[in-house]
Amino acid sequence: MKKIISFLLFSFSVSFFIHAQNQDLAEEAFYVREIYNTALTQGQCHQWLEHLTTNIGGRLSGSPQSIAAIEYTRQMLDTLLLDKVYLQECKVPHWVRGEPEQVKIVSSQKLGSVDLHALALGNSIGTGAMGITAEVIEVKSLEELEQLGQDQIEGKIVFFNRPFDPTQINTFAGYGGAVDQRAFGASRASNYGAVGCLVRSVTPSLDYFPHTGGMSYETGSIQIPSIAISTKDAALLSSLLKEEPIRVYMRNTSQMLDDKTSYNVIGEIMGTEKPEEIILVGGHLDSWDVGQGAHDDGAGCVQAMDVLQIFKRLNYQPKRTIRCVLFMNEENGLRGARAYWQASKESGTLHLAAIESDRGGFTPRGFSCDGDPSTFNEKFKKVTRWLPLLEPYGIGLKKGGSGADISGLKNPDGLLFGLLPDSQRYFDVHHAANDTFDKVNKRELELGAAAMASLVYLLDKYGLD
Amino acid sequence: MKKIISFLLFSFSVSFFIHAQNQDLAEEAFYVREIYNTALTQGQCHQWLEHLTTNIGGRLSGSPQSIAAIEYTRQMLDTLLLDKVYLQECKVPHWVRGEPEQVKIVSSQKLGSVDLHALALGNSIGTGAMGITAEVIEVKSLEELEQLGQDQIEGKIVFFNRPFDPTQINTFAGYGGAVDQRAFGASRASNYGAVGCLVRSVTPSLDYFPHTGGMSYETGSIQIPSIAISTKDAALLSSLLKEEPIRVYMRNTSQMLDDKTSYNVIGEIMGTEKPEEIILVGGHLDSWDVGQGAHDDGAGCVQAMDVLQIFKRLNYQPKRTIRCVLFMNEENGLRGARAYWQASKESGTLHLAAIESDRGGFTPRGFSCDGDPSTFNEKFKKVTRWLPLLEPYGIGLKKGGSGADISGLKNPDGLLFGLLPDSQRYFDVHHAANDTFDKVNKRELELGAAAMASLVYLLDKYGLD
Repeated sequence: MKKIISFLLFSFSVSFFIHAQNQDLAEEAFYVREIYNTALTQGQCHQWLEHLTTNIGGRLSGSPQSIAAIEYTRQMLDTLLLDKVYLQECKVPHWVRGEPEQVKIVSSQKLGSVDLHALALGNSIGTGAMGITAEVIEVKSLEELEQLGQDQIEGKIVFFNRPFDPTQINTFAGYGGAVDQRAFGASRASNYGAVGCLVRSVTPSLDYFPHTGGMSYETGSIQIPSIAISTKDAALLSSLLKEEPIRVYMRNTSQMLDDKTSYNVIGEIMGTEKPEEIILVGGHLDSWDVGQGAHDDGAGCVQAMDVLQIFKRLNYQPKRTIRCVLFMNEENGLRGARAYWQASKESGTLHLAAIESDRGGFTPRGFSCDGDPSTFNEKFKKVTRWLPLLEPYGIGLKKGGSGADISGLKNPDGLLFGLLPDSQRYFDVHHAANDTFDKVNKRELELGAAAMASLVYLLDKYGLD
Repeated sequence: MKKIISFLLFSFSVSFFIHAQNQDLAEEAFYVREIYNTALTQGQCHQWLEHLTTNIGGRLSGSPQSIAAIEYTRQMLDTLLLDKVYLQECKVPHWVRGEPEQVKIVSSQKLGSVDLHALALGNSIGTGAMGITAEVIEVKSLEELEQLGQDQIEGKIVFFNRPFDPTQINTFAGYGGAVDQRAFGASRASNYGAVGCLVRSVTPSLDYFPHTGGMSYETGSIQIPSIAISTKDAALLSSLLKEEPIRVYMRNTSQMLDDKTSYNVIGEIMGTEKPEEIILVGGHLDSWDVGQGAHDDGAGCVQAMDVLQIFKRLNYQPKRTIRCVLFMNEENGLRGARAYWQASKESGTLHLAAIESDRGGFTPRGFSCDGDPSTFNEKFKKVTRWLPLLEPYGIGLKKGGSGADISGLKNPDGLLFGLLPDSQRYFDVHHAANDTFDKVNKRELELGAAAMASLVYLLDKYGLD
């Protein structure tokens, strides 16, 4: 009986609600359809991504390739006949990998000498030209270091081997549960006298691709080199360690050079009614030096650019200014974003919304949403009213999170959004040599651009009051 | 005001409803979590798929490879210590492709002679050893044939070139909108005196992979050969035809040999309370002869097998019989399914549910559901009550459709389901040489198996009354 009553109340309220809404949504539904049609038949994101990946490739901050990427995207934005295209200066750290890493098991009775597939972590120092040879000790967490203490760690290479938890359905949760080893492992291990670090690559895949990524040295800590090894090599090393003491030789010649001048790339369609209100779409233009930065984050950049291309092709005149920002240096410094935040603060720029795509060019599932606590709930509720327009395209909305490069733009007048694609494949290629153009599916990429353009359109039309 | 009232009614009814439900769902939520954990850490689908694709490969009905696939999957089911593993006989058509197809533009002033990438459509006859040379006429639909009539078609090769509509978000809608040309094009064209057919590959991709697939000759029609060409070659041919008359040489030696004996492969865990009620999970074991049949439908087969593996590993004792069926001959005859339907009818078998996975091993998005009109709505409503358990895993439910091999099992006591994965990538590889093991992502495959196992668990626990 309870169930009958609740079901009746439910259906009554839903039909009442839908009727109250219907007259508002027909025009918008048509326009969202137009956006999707344009994205799927006249999108340019895939072509742009092809050039960015196969003709330019890996483009770490400070590298010549990053400068080529700035020039390429600026030229492509120029072809769109926008109202403005300009570069915004920033200073970026310039880390270089140096010679190919060597990590070699040197003492195994069982296997003799074994070469492991390795990549130094970003910002790591080098071992010096002679390399380092030491005994390896395996740990599964930063806490375990503490338990083992100086006695057990001193003079050794610490091998962080906590695997990526495969039972987390959203792979970003798995990533979050493992990445502390990469980011802070070396810094902590050095406190106990370790001479070097090996880190299991942060990926659910079992293969021979090492995955790099940023690490940092805590101020005052002794700096030791930190090198990622592939998951298959980590499994091998771990199984050998169960049977015999293992000594490893590790060698890398990475170093931090002087900061370089670099740029964010910006393109804008000026608003006709409230040009001072900015709706930002963006991605980060830098990538790690291995692979082609296809999913991370070439995809996000070309999607953001395609949002503007789609609006120009539809002859859409926004009320507010639509601004595409390709941020430099997200991977190892966030200096591009910080320069943008600083300039926005100094000029008192109002960001009605900022949308970042930095989770790969996979089928979009929705947007995450964040904002200033004082106004978030009401503004979020407003956006949920648009969900019936996005639902036919498989797009939903979640509270919490947006994107690293836009995270500093939180303000009481606006909202931040992160595009949320299907997460299953991302960490197979993240920060590794296999993040290549062929891994990006044209339709999936275009659907992400369409989803972002649709959200921009609704934000522009309705605002967030 | 209207909106406030409806919102209040809505929230009241929802919270009322959830409370009435909550006590039922905690145990189930736990068990579904266990199923997913097992699938993601102890799944065998990916390993099995590796063997099926890289050690066996393309396995068209009647071929030796199809017999190897039967033996392999039977042996793998044997390792699961099920209650029964057996083969069910059927007779299948045995079409063979013959020598590599040749399709060549022979008359172009602009380009001279150009070889196109081609694959004969399944069940097509051959051109004869000398091949066929004729002028090409392009059409965009079966209706256009009729408009052009015998005058324009007689003695020519008809080139069906209606493209896959990229604006359909669900690619299966795009497929449905283009595949008639492949299935019936040659049969209709022969009515107007055409001597052969070229068909644009049914895929949204623009590349050089031709896609095969079944075609049929209407009873009484003159049989002419039908060959698929890649989308890039179709675009080239079409653009040349705008400028000059084009003659094409086509040659293939496909033929239909005698029917062969083959088998469906079946494994079962017997129910402890209602063993006479069957819950079926399945896929089709045959594939086209090109590529490795990785997504179509190796993925579905190994997922169905893994449902049983997951239950055995969890020591789950079902009330009803859980039956895995790997159907032979889905691609060009459905003879395996028909043998199964016939045997079920003769033995009066009650199928409480049948679930087919035949849309690839991509991230699952939900299930489609079909049934007997007299009982469908009430049974569908029952299943929707389980949605809160599946929603955390991104699984939803849609009315309509299930799977070709189970479509004959509709009955008033049960429901049919089709696994619905994300559709964006499927038709890039469907029936083509690039449907290979490396295109299948391990996590996505495992998530599909877990979704199917979860639905089976709920059907077994609750039934459909």
